[in-house]
Amino acid sequence: MSTKATVEKLVSLCKRRGLVFQSSEIYGGIGGFWDYGPLGVELKNNIKQAWWRAVVQERDDVVGQDAAIVMNPTVWRASGHLDTFADPMVDCKECKKRFRADALVGEVPAGTHGHDAAEVTRCPECGGELTPPRMFNLMFKTYVGAVEDDASVAYLRPETAQGIFVNFANVLTATRKKLPLGIAQIGKAFRNEITPGNFIFRDREFEQMEIEYFVKPGTDEQWHQHWVEERYNWYLRLGMQKENVRVRQLDRDELAHYAKDTYEVEYLFPMGWSELEGIANRTDFDLRRHAEFSGRDLEYFDEETGEHIVPFVIEPSAGVDRLFMAFLIDAYDEEEVRGPSAGSGRGETRVILRLHKDLAPIKVAVLPLSRQEKLVPPAREVWALVRKHWMSQYDDAQSIGRRYRRQDEVGTPLCVTVDFDTLEDQAVTIRERDSMEQVRVPIAGLVDALRERLNTGD
Amino acid sequence: MSTKATVEKLVSLCKRRGLVFQSSEIYGGIGGFWDYGPLGVELKNNIKQAWWRAVVQERDDVVGQDAAIVMNPTVWRASGHLDTFADPMVDCKECKKRFRADALVGEVPAGTHGHDAAEVTRCPECGGELTPPRMFNLMFKTYVGAVEDDASVAYLRPETAQGIFVNFANVLTATRKKLPLGIAQIGKAFRNEITPGNFIFRDREFEQMEIEYFVKPGTDEQWHQHWVEERYNWYLRLGMQKENVRVRQLDRDELAHYAKDTYEVEYLFPMGWSELEGIANRTDFDLRRHAEFSGRDLEYFDEETGEHIVPFVIEPSAGVDRLFMAFLIDAYDEEEVRGPSAGSGRGETRVILRLHKDLAPIKVAVLPLSRQEKLVPPAREVWALVRKHWMSQYDDAQSIGRRYRRQDEVGTPLCVTVDFDTLEDQAVTIRERDSMEQVRVPIAGLVDALRERLNTGD
Repeated sequence: MSTKATVEKLVSLCKRRGLVFQSSEIYGGIGGFWDYGPLGVELKNNIKQAWWRAVVQERDDVVGQDAAIVMNPTVWRASGHLDTFADPMVDCKECKKRFRADALVGEVPAGTHGHDAAEVTRCPECGGELTPPRMFNLMFKTYVGAVEDDASVAYLRPETAQGIFVNFANVLTATRKKLPLGIAQIGKAFRNEITPGNFIFRDREFEQMEIEYFVKPGTDEQWHQHWVEERYNWYLRLGMQKENVRVRQLDRDELAHYAKDTYEVEYLFPMGWSELEGIANRTDFDLRRHAEFSGRDLEYFDEETGEHIVPFVIEPSAGVDRLFMAFLIDAYDEEEVRGPSAGSGRGETRVILRLHKDLAPIKVAVLPLSRQEKLVPPAREVWALVRKHWMSQYDDAQSIGRRYRRQDEVGTPLCVTVDFDTLEDQAVTIRERDSMEQVRVPIAGLVDALRERLNTGD
Repeated sequence: MSTKATVEKLVSLCKRRGLVFQSSEIYGGIGGFWDYGPLGVELKNNIKQAWWRAVVQERDDVVGQDAAIVMNPTVWRASGHLDTFADPMVDCKECKKRFRADALVGEVPAGTHGHDAAEVTRCPECGGELTPPRMFNLMFKTYVGAVEDDASVAYLRPETAQGIFVNFANVLTATRKKLPLGIAQIGKAFRNEITPGNFIFRDREFEQMEIEYFVKPGTDEQWHQHWVEERYNWYLRLGMQKENVRVRQLDRDELAHYAKDTYEVEYLFPMGWSELEGIANRTDFDLRRHAEFSGRDLEYFDEETGEHIVPFVIEPSAGVDRLFMAFLIDAYDEEEVRGPSAGSGRGETRVILRLHKDLAPIKVAVLPLSRQEKLVPPAREVWALVRKHWMSQYDDAQSIGRRYRRQDEVGTPLCVTVDFDTLEDQAVTIRERDSMEQVRVPIAGLVDALRERLNTGD
């Protein structure tokens, strides 16, 4: 983690520059729900596209899909979520507040001293007596159809994974693929967390990027290692600082009910090492359960051995919102600078997001040196050229130095400055975010020069 | 509409080739919910990206955002959805089935003859007596937090638009933009339709692409015309046949409660002309309501006139799923072909999706002429080259002719064939979907040759 980034600075930057807003803020918000603003939606889309490119487009063994959020409710009986996807809750008999029992572990209740975790029986807010823990299911419930009764109950999916398991046979048939075969999906999931928090780290509505990678039993452990390495390296390729990312194997008592073994890619958030992505060996648990509950044949016919098998599943599962937060924290920097390209002749601090160019919300900013009228036509022309290719901005407000700093602060890799010389030499200046180096290029070669520096695949 | 496409052919193609599956199919499905398979998710993403590129990236007056699906419930009181977003329903007293009263208009109840629409008082299924119509709200309801009571009720948004209105002031401040300013958004919306149907045309869970374009009052009518033209032309630019697309101004009695005037872009679906996109003049209705219900100042300070104004809003609102369906229907063709590039020496019918190259799920297929071992290394090498740049497929199963037809059927614009000459001349054949023309290019120049033909901006 950049020691310069704090959650407070991040939240403030995100609101001020249009990355993240509190949902329904004008109505006082709603806990655990967040909106992505103009720059935030670009960063989020770039994270999703970088993932899709790495795990679908560039691989020969993974295809994508996009299942509905609301599914037949039997899915959640089969998956075990209806029975086990619950947290132990306690209520305060005095103030009526509700708490997650496991979150109270280690908390010191008001008006007491140094209790052992297991002994917490009093409210941490008012000191009142707490009820014994009761299980509370985290799935959001709704009703589909005209009548609200037990037959019409449905749930918002708490994970995208199940939409893949129930489509496994259809995808296999349609794609004519053999094992190992991965199915990747990006989509919203919902969990009625009792204590959402840490900005967008734990939301009630969030977005997942999940792969269910189906393999022959016996090969699952080697594929598990493959995916742990792949996914860890993906974060480094996208510029995360190595000292802030680690892989941790979960202890046996941390495993979900379906998992034989799980690794986490963790990031050093301001609140400590926390999960970015879980990579679980779900075994054949899900396919067996869905075969049992649906009565369908979800086996795979292995042409080589002539056997019918139930594939094992390796699941790399990442949360887009917490990746968004981690990439921002990791990229956040403050540095002392001097000189005109820094934005000022005086020594000053510039805030800079050192985002990987593939992630930067805006790739290129076009800045006329001043608002003088004769600069407007060439500057607009340059912008028209640029925005055909990349997400870009035009900014002519205030001094060139302040505008450089505004772009640095949101991670724009390149600024193109149109000045009075442009009127003579038909050339512009490209200024690079990190080095602040400037180079003069003819407008006729600008797109190629930008492409070379942004190097965006095709 | 292509007269060759029927909904039945489309549904069958979509399932067989992995475009669209019924949600939770192994559990008998769930009405009004659909999943997008490996090719479907690519087509859907391409539609969304083409839209985003046209209305956000390439414009200087529109920015994006991505709001949460679940919002503070007061939003829906302010918007009017809690009071008015309802359909009149009737119940059959005999069989207990529920129907939309307006959908029964024109239906002939079982066991009766030629009734006038207004007189339908008997069940169309069993002939039983119907109740008088009652209003039924179409929003899905859920509960946020630990307790299910009136204070914790929340709704799944029935339109993405409101997430834009409540963020208007935040976006304006963060972007420092002036009017006219559009805010664009793509996201899921939910409506508890009583009678979903026509494949993915009317879903309960669907995806919207909406722009709220904020303008000064008095300029709204001219901007309305601008957007009607822009959006109509977008469909034509993406290859829709002109005779299948039309613009229709809604009659006064068809307008929503917030609208002063609305145009629809309609497509000639197999079931008749139906809405692809509505372009409404929502006036200042929404901002005024949110200002009233939230107590916040949602006015815009016009620096030119020194006035505080409430902007008017032009809203182009499209449904991704029905666009998906329309693009497929429009692209669907069957033709008699001959010759090896057609896939056969005999005269045969080929099914072909003449999708615009920007929309095609797979841009390039790499096909070794046969499975002979010596073709594998060069073919794999070519595929590794191609898939860095484009979504691609490798197919070596069955005859080259069948493989061409498989790619034609899903709209792949280009096939690259690796044959025995490749081993000698280091060249491959590019085969074009529509013309079936073939051209030989050296592998060293393949990426450039493909880029030239696909011309995908960057």
